[in-house]
Amino acid sequence: MESGFIEAARAAAAAVDEGRLWQSLMDLAAVGARSDGGVCRHALSDEDIAARALLIGWAEARGLEVSVDEVANLFIRRRGRQPDAAPVLVGSHLDSQPAGGKFDGAYGVLAGLEVLIALDEAGVETQRPIDIVAWTNEEGGRFDRSCTGSSVWAGASELESYLGDIGADGVALGEALAKTLAATPDLARRPRRWPAHAFIEPHIEQGPVLETGNIPVAAVTGIQGVRWMNVEVAGKAGHAGTTPMAERHDALQAALRAIGELNTLMSDPHDRVRFTVGRVNVTPNSPNTIPEKVMFSIDFRHPDEAVLEDRGGRIAEAVKTAAAPCRTLITPTLTMDPTTFPEAMVAIIEANASGLGIGCIRLASGAFHDALYAARVCPTAMIFIPCRNGLSHHPDEWAEPRHCAEGARVLAATLAQLADTS
Amino acid sequence: MESGFIEAARAAAAAVDEGRLWQSLMDLAAVGARSDGGVCRHALSDEDIAARALLIGWAEARGLEVSVDEVANLFIRRRGRQPDAAPVLVGSHLDSQPAGGKFDGAYGVLAGLEVLIALDEAGVETQRPIDIVAWTNEEGGRFDRSCTGSSVWAGASELESYLGDIGADGVALGEALAKTLAATPDLARRPRRWPAHAFIEPHIEQGPVLETGNIPVAAVTGIQGVRWMNVEVAGKAGHAGTTPMAERHDALQAALRAIGELNTLMSDPHDRVRFTVGRVNVTPNSPNTIPEKVMFSIDFRHPDEAVLEDRGGRIAEAVKTAAAPCRTLITPTLTMDPTTFPEAMVAIIEANASGLGIGCIRLASGAFHDALYAARVCPTAMIFIPCRNGLSHHPDEWAEPRHCAEGARVLAATLAQLADTS
Repeated sequence: MESGFIEAARAAAAAVDEGRLWQSLMDLAAVGARSDGGVCRHALSDEDIAARALLIGWAEARGLEVSVDEVANLFIRRRGRQPDAAPVLVGSHLDSQPAGGKFDGAYGVLAGLEVLIALDEAGVETQRPIDIVAWTNEEGGRFDRSCTGSSVWAGASELESYLGDIGADGVALGEALAKTLAATPDLARRPRRWPAHAFIEPHIEQGPVLETGNIPVAAVTGIQGVRWMNVEVAGKAGHAGTTPMAERHDALQAALRAIGELNTLMSDPHDRVRFTVGRVNVTPNSPNTIPEKVMFSIDFRHPDEAVLEDRGGRIAEAVKTAAAPCRTLITPTLTMDPTTFPEAMVAIIEANASGLGIGCIRLASGAFHDALYAARVCPTAMIFIPCRNGLSHHPDEWAEPRHCAEGARVLAATLAQLADTS
Repeated sequence: MESGFIEAARAAAAAVDEGRLWQSLMDLAAVGARSDGGVCRHALSDEDIAARALLIGWAEARGLEVSVDEVANLFIRRRGRQPDAAPVLVGSHLDSQPAGGKFDGAYGVLAGLEVLIALDEAGVETQRPIDIVAWTNEEGGRFDRSCTGSSVWAGASELESYLGDIGADGVALGEALAKTLAATPDLARRPRRWPAHAFIEPHIEQGPVLETGNIPVAAVTGIQGVRWMNVEVAGKAGHAGTTPMAERHDALQAALRAIGELNTLMSDPHDRVRFTVGRVNVTPNSPNTIPEKVMFSIDFRHPDEAVLEDRGGRIAEAVKTAAAPCRTLITPTLTMDPTTFPEAMVAIIEANASGLGIGCIRLASGAFHDALYAARVCPTAMIFIPCRNGLSHHPDEWAEPRHCAEGARVLAATLAQLADTS
């Protein structure tokens, strides 16, 4: 692939319509809208089905070809001069957090749609087809295990292993999936896996760097690695009024000592370590009973595998020592090594932003994305745009219309170029 | 009142039957029995109604007079030579914690019953009537506000203020109360309040002191005071993967700092302070979201009002300073000053234990009891017996048969004496 700027790219970018893109974002946000301005659109729910229907309607009105695979990943194709060439993929997801916003996921899908329309209007033909994709269940808001669609597509896991997962509403994933597929019986069915030429995922940053720096676009260099684990601390229940302090095995106090020790272990003057205890469950959680058990979660992330290995490997001993005499048990729940996007992919985005005169920096993603799985099977990168206060997974999530359009222009140029490369 | 030992007391104590008392404890524990050996007998539940029926049957078989008041406090009277004299009260409660044991509450009621039977068998007549009482909803396990029956009886609160309380099962207290009263339509109805000559509450210690010292009985000197409060810590939610540590307002980390500061404030080389954080609720409690809000409970107890005032008064400032930049809000949920039982009552118990040759120490109660409210309107004291490992509010709660009997013997002597005093 080359990273130069081509004329077709300029024409496609120029045809991106800020107002049209914005209107599509607002129209989609009405599906599953919350009264507080946010969006609740659980994967494979009635709202997800309605969002898919809206998107399919827009695509078919533009003569684009819609298809779906067995995990309900939705594809929208703009044909290329070589209809059977491996397509360039662009997209993200339609599902949201329970108290999510209008942009997380939706922006990636609709920026893709805007670019396909812009390519048509600019009269740009590409060698390769370009497929918009809306991956199924990225958020894990209804069914806990996230990135279901991209993970299955990339062969990182088997669809069959997800079918029995029970959602927060008690419905099995297999049942919700069947209902979603049954809602579009006429769609062409894609096979389980097939080669893609490249994948670009546009997304809001979900962090404060672009906004703080007043920069409209980032070429994302990769996704930091994570170590997730649950720590169980086992103490001894007792009556809060009668048990002398010296005789207590208070699981909460032990957990506090353990978290304090982890704060020290994770301290980083460069502020690149991300360490979060987001969940604490106390048993029996009664004001006048000494806590018998505490479970707390650890979310530890870093872009450098060596740091993850080193500090991650010292968590168990730190927790055990600090929590004594209470006993501790650590269960890893997710281990993801850092993902590094190919330099050529990052460079193409940078070059196109530069060619369009749109400010762009390189940035690592702090959050997971479907791009993490796609990167295992095809050259992948992401384009970030700023979001207000770095806020995401929140009803107040917001991106400015001009930033949405600037991201889509860089995307248009990048896709035009990728779809013409062999 | 005198504190000497009288012959009727010796005869009553001698008639206490360890096996009969133990059998009644085991029979009652079968009502609401849990598969783990514990008891779940919520106040005013079907299990409570069944426990009352069992007790009423035993009482009526012995010719004792059963009555009930408007808050379903259950009374079982052994008549005195002066039928209209203010009675001596003895008892505790029949309700349990959700995962409670066989002795908390039940022992006080059944030790009372054993003593009334023993008095009959010993042919001891008393001047005053002796009333066993089973107070309604001591535990607060179903309806949050505890000691409902004793509080209303003592005039510390109005029954009407409780009727709308909604139980953990969604049922209003008023409705559950009506159902309980309707189950015994033939019982004589006692008026709301009436004078009692004295109240003795036998109970397991719920702490380790008697067992550690190998002492069978304690004369309880009073009940320590408490300050309960809830602390809310308000931070800012954010994505665990993207938000730099330096920009976080993590409500959980702020709560940990606050609890650490409280640990320091509450430290006590004499180990008389009781300080417990038993409940922690994190919002949104998601592993990959920085906690936005944390609520934690404070249970602070001490027998000395001055200590409660001094350290209790410094909690708010300590929490506020430690939790900054997160904001904090403290809501007191219960303030109880220490209760001191009359010296004469404590001395009577001591003298009777001594007269019977049963080892006895003085001890302050770390836990609340109905005696706390009764002490407001009549001379009150408690008798403690040991429990294994100091454990209570737990299915493994256990008291030895011989300790149950020894406590009942001291109780028998004490009641015989109190019921013959003017």
